[in-house]
Amino acid sequence: MKTMESPTPPILTVDAVLLTLADGTLHAALFKRDAPPFQDQWALPGGYVRVDEDDSAKAAAARVLWQKTGLASPYLEEFGTVSGPARDPRGWSLSVVYYALVPAPLLPPSVALFPVAALPNLPFDHAAIIAGVVARVRSKASYSSLPVYLCPDEFTISELHAVYQAVLDDTLNMANFRRKLEDLEILEEIPGATRASGRNRPAQLYRVARRFKHTLSVRERGL
Amino acid sequence: MKTMESPTPPILTVDAVLLTLADGTLHAALFKRDAPPFQDQWALPGGYVRVDEDDSAKAAAARVLWQKTGLASPYLEEFGTVSGPARDPRGWSLSVVYYALVPAPLLPPSVALFPVAALPNLPFDHAAIIAGVVARVRSKASYSSLPVYLCPDEFTISELHAVYQAVLDDTLNMANFRRKLEDLEILEEIPGATRASGRNRPAQLYRVARRFKHTLSVRERGL
Repeated sequence: MKTMESPTPPILTVDAVLLTLADGTLHAALFKRDAPPFQDQWALPGGYVRVDEDDSAKAAAARVLWQKTGLASPYLEEFGTVSGPARDPRGWSLSVVYYALVPAPLLPPSVALFPVAALPNLPFDHAAIIAGVVARVRSKASYSSLPVYLCPDEFTISELHAVYQAVLDDTLNMANFRRKLEDLEILEEIPGATRASGRNRPAQLYRVARRFKHTLSVRERGL
Repeated sequence: MKTMESPTPPILTVDAVLLTLADGTLHAALFKRDAPPFQDQWALPGGYVRVDEDDSAKAAAARVLWQKTGLASPYLEEFGTVSGPARDPRGWSLSVVYYALVPAPLLPPSVALFPVAALPNLPFDHAAIIAGVVARVRSKASYSSLPVYLCPDEFTISELHAVYQAVLDDTLNMANFRRKLEDLEILEEIPGATRASGRNRPAQLYRVARRFKHTLSVRERGL
């Protein structure tokens, strides 16, 4: 049994940054905190690691997301840790931060989406965490398949192009984009499936190749 | 005060992978463990986060390295976390893993260096951690200034070229290497300083530009 002299153990939590596209720009999914500290404030979904339930910190993040959003097994990447004596009023804490890119229609109505460029005041170091994750996602998007996780199951090249542009917050030459996509080898044509759009010729529909459902394809050169 | 019913809190530790070059190949610095579990086995330097001493997990890693090696403020990067109920016999644990590249002459005699391709049997998940860090370092080396941390304060381009080749475990065309180094803009000529080598013309000595002493320069394209 612990004696009173031993210092309070550090608090171990996980936080998740869920990013999605809405109105053509990156948005973060926030939740109203249902308990102190900072009760009723918008914040990242997160919670304690439960040693009797969770097989890893990542499993804890997946559990928290499942409980708060009903999302099962989104592709979670570890962003890193934030830690120290001052970030949480409850005491010295370390949080392992994960992020996931999720198509907006998969998010439940309990989620509030805020543009990453116009977030409300956030507790803890959540504003800095989101800023760090957005920078990471933009950097990774430029040379990997990461943005495809924002797409629905089936999409046209134009739709994917729009997604990449929204994530990168930049314009991408369509011909270059097509060529570089081919290098990533992540897409499969869906045989015979097309989508009509206005008066254009119906566009071929694509899906992510099965082997990239839970891993990234990475190019050596930026898009 | 804690009641007996609350689960044991998770153990929070840090581990550090110190990589260096010896005999022209990457080596990891290991220490004999001085306490159970796995006493007297070779292992990564690591230890508990101390909430009354450490301002962050990274500060804990720097403290452990200072105490075990006398190294002050090497450039530490966070590799990620390893966690779960089974990796440490003491209980559910999470370790934040950091890595640093260090010139061999800075390491104290208490360190044992093992080639990363021929490690001894290691406790915990330390073998998997080192394999993961080596893969990360090789990947980052190909498009960043990371390997310069393995160099002494002053070095020639040939010496740096040899360091990159050793880290990447590959041959690099010297002319391309010089050009790509220039893109990284990390080097400063040391005015008037040269090093003689055999019967060759004395070679210009370089140092890392001050602003990259504790940060990386990253290229968009691989070396």
